[in-house]
Amino acid sequence: MNLKSIVGEYPDFPKKGVLFRDFNPILRDPAAFKETVDRISDVISPDDIDVFAGIESRGFILASVMALRHNKGMITLRKAGKLPGKTIKESYTVEYGQDTLEIQRDAVREGQRVMICDDLLATGGTAAAAAALVEEAGGDVAGFLFIIELAGLGGSAKISRYKRESLLVYDG
Amino acid sequence: MNLKSIVGEYPDFPKKGVLFRDFNPILRDPAAFKETVDRISDVISPDDIDVFAGIESRGFILASVMALRHNKGMITLRKAGKLPGKTIKESYTVEYGQDTLEIQRDAVREGQRVMICDDLLATGGTAAAAAALVEEAGGDVAGFLFIIELAGLGGSAKISRYKRESLLVYDG
Repeated sequence: MNLKSIVGEYPDFPKKGVLFRDFNPILRDPAAFKETVDRISDVISPDDIDVFAGIESRGFILASVMALRHNKGMITLRKAGKLPGKTIKESYTVEYGQDTLEIQRDAVREGQRVMICDDLLATGGTAAAAAALVEEAGGDVAGFLFIIELAGLGGSAKISRYKRESLLVYDG
Repeated sequence: MNLKSIVGEYPDFPKKGVLFRDFNPILRDPAAFKETVDRISDVISPDDIDVFAGIESRGFILASVMALRHNKGMITLRKAGKLPGKTIKESYTVEYGQDTLEIQRDAVREGQRVMICDDLLATGGTAAAAAALVEEAGGDVAGFLFIIELAGLGGSAKISRYKRESLLVYDG
């Protein structure tokens, strides 16, 4: 199945000059959604993973289906202020300022191997912050899984010391 | 398995006087996560559902695992401004003002039966807005699925004309 042919393309979203790649059409199509999860499952070693972490909000989708499929737990990496209890925060630069990700202190046990999931790897700022959070919470980063990678934006370099897999890679 | 005993309880979050019930500990525990999905699967009729809709952001978790498990598609109901292409918006009242949910116009085909998923049923404002959106997009609401319901907040009355199932119901 040619999954790239199903991905939506929207010029000038969310702003002029950006070509937005939309994976919603994959999710809507049961066969495409299943193939996405099958193909990402093929490139991981479940025995080397203890838990899948999803980056809010679209990363929750991949992390939860991978966790359930492979009989692992799932943890959520959320925007600031949404998680109760003791948390750790990590701020990172986005285009027009700063954003913050947060993890619960007890989300990860010491030495647990955490596979971080998101729908998209773009500039890599969010991914790098996610790795820092997992490590600060005591976890080991097992790697990264992305559905779409925009290779031209160089995000892979920001997480180059980790294993990382992207299902659909675009140059532009 | 007593899933309620795994749910986290945080007094005074996100503000004084509120007891926050946190389902993150269920997600982290592979057996509890699987049992959650098994038990919610037991109360639905997959033949009467075409697609699962997840309300951003924690609703994405239940919707995606249910979609994959039952070989259906998944659609996302998102906060305003995040979905590309033609969309429909629905505003609703929250405690200190208004919030808005959005759906892509082409997310649902005419007459598709949409099961709406969220982690939590509280006052029901978000759920009612989600149903209005699905119907405006041409879909039929097959019902609602929630992991946690705070029955004392009366949300169920706001969506009383739809089928609805909550796995863990709390009076207070």
